[in-house]
Amino acid sequence: MEKDFGGFKGILVYGLGLIGGSFAKSLKSEGFTGKIYGFDLNENRVKTAESMQVIDKGFTNLEKIPWNDIDLVVIATPVKTFETVANSIKPFLKENTVITDVGSVKGDLVYKLKEILSPYEFIGAHPIAGTEKEGVENSVDGLFKGKKLILTIDEETENTKRLEKLWTDLGAKVEVMDPYMHDFVFASVSHLPHAVAFALVDALISLSRETGIDLFLYPGAGFKDFTRIAASSPTIWKDIFIQNKQDVLKTIDEFINSLQKLKNLIEKEDEDGLIKLLEESRDKRLSLEKENANCR
Amino acid sequence: MEKDFGGFKGILVYGLGLIGGSFAKSLKSEGFTGKIYGFDLNENRVKTAESMQVIDKGFTNLEKIPWNDIDLVVIATPVKTFETVANSIKPFLKENTVITDVGSVKGDLVYKLKEILSPYEFIGAHPIAGTEKEGVENSVDGLFKGKKLILTIDEETENTKRLEKLWTDLGAKVEVMDPYMHDFVFASVSHLPHAVAFALVDALISLSRETGIDLFLYPGAGFKDFTRIAASSPTIWKDIFIQNKQDVLKTIDEFINSLQKLKNLIEKEDEDGLIKLLEESRDKRLSLEKENANCR
Repeated sequence: MEKDFGGFKGILVYGLGLIGGSFAKSLKSEGFTGKIYGFDLNENRVKTAESMQVIDKGFTNLEKIPWNDIDLVVIATPVKTFETVANSIKPFLKENTVITDVGSVKGDLVYKLKEILSPYEFIGAHPIAGTEKEGVENSVDGLFKGKKLILTIDEETENTKRLEKLWTDLGAKVEVMDPYMHDFVFASVSHLPHAVAFALVDALISLSRETGIDLFLYPGAGFKDFTRIAASSPTIWKDIFIQNKQDVLKTIDEFINSLQKLKNLIEKEDEDGLIKLLEESRDKRLSLEKENANCR
Repeated sequence: MEKDFGGFKGILVYGLGLIGGSFAKSLKSEGFTGKIYGFDLNENRVKTAESMQVIDKGFTNLEKIPWNDIDLVVIATPVKTFETVANSIKPFLKENTVITDVGSVKGDLVYKLKEILSPYEFIGAHPIAGTEKEGVENSVDGLFKGKKLILTIDEETENTKRLEKLWTDLGAKVEVMDPYMHDFVFASVSHLPHAVAFALVDALISLSRETGIDLFLYPGAGFKDFTRIAASSPTIWKDIFIQNKQDVLKTIDEFINSLQKLKNLIEKEDEDGLIKLLEESRDKRLSLEKENANCR
């Protein structure tokens, strides 16, 4: 099917970070011919985005934005700010403008945003792509190619189909999911691993302090792969952990159970039990080898 | 300095797995001109090693080995078997033969092996290199280049200097460490991360079962990097966890403390506390970016 990016003609990217920047960049390189506007409270980011030609024009003041040209707003700020952002843009929106996001937390937040933005249509979206870097200056052309894009919608509408087409035209594989299921799934496969990586580095800092041995002089590749995601943005992750608190705590508890199980097996020197647990994990992990997705 | 591999002329690699195979392969490619013998209880491994020309000649029967030609034995079996191996080879050793190993656990084991093998000299060694694969068929030429090699010795002798020279000639960076400090350090930077990776996959298996949602359909690159080491050998890791039990349990406890700390901060929505913990971990992790070591 021809690329028409869902028929949107003027897109405002609200928040010029890594994901917002990569979204704008990818639109351009995939041949989007409409206008791409950018907004950020940080003037440097706006200037950087303009000079990199990631956006056509940038703003730090909502009132100066040509709202009549805009039929899609993409909220790409930290999830914590979403409600404030929705309230602040609502008075400016023209009829039939669609609002979406790229945030990592959905659940209740989706319904709150729908309520705030009504009668405008809000559609929750989450591209499963990213790097541990931050800022528009690190944005990546083609970041979403071949990656999953989760649309958290209850029912299909004309506009959800348009948004699906836009992401498909950027190369993403669109999947529809209930907002609450989304939060549980990504708490498990993304938020929990991040929590674990941060906690693992924290434990090694504590062990180094207690023993006076600088353990970070002995980082192997295993450890480095393992903790790469601990280099992710503290601000973004603090927000995700708090916004998705219930699911994150539930998955951390389950993980502590698994650790205790492993600990008991080691304590008892239960060789058969250990082999069983390690083999089951290994087999499950090996079954993923051929997957290609990229997860934030 | 000229490569003389410590002056050893006949080397027996006892155990033709990934590390033993890579050691033999690297000796050959670096120009070792002495004989390389291999021993393994598994006849297929011996045949594979011979047909790959990783070793000059292989054996499955200790009595058939030309012991008079051998002045260095490298024990490269799982650590659990070391004492049995030492007892079984002792009657065959010729005067002045040096025995060493490539195992991941040191501590008491080093002193036990010294005792068993006395009057022959045993020198504990641990190359900080490896992959999650197993077997001589996956052995890697140059695996030890630029990697650390820990010699766990109390004092330098003529033979520790020879062994240091051999590993230096294979490209390894030799470092001397107390056997007990070795076990604590590698419990922290290698055994703990492996335990965590196995437990993380185990937790996701449990969560998938409980909810009926196959979480493994959503593996991102972060999760995959993170759990790559969960694909490591269950047999090898069961042994390491049990052999280094005290240090492994101590580091798992410290890690659970860090997780509980993070959990409490999320529960209380303590933004400042979260930022502090995440930033400290991130900064420490970023400081490793330029390191090159490769850790099993």
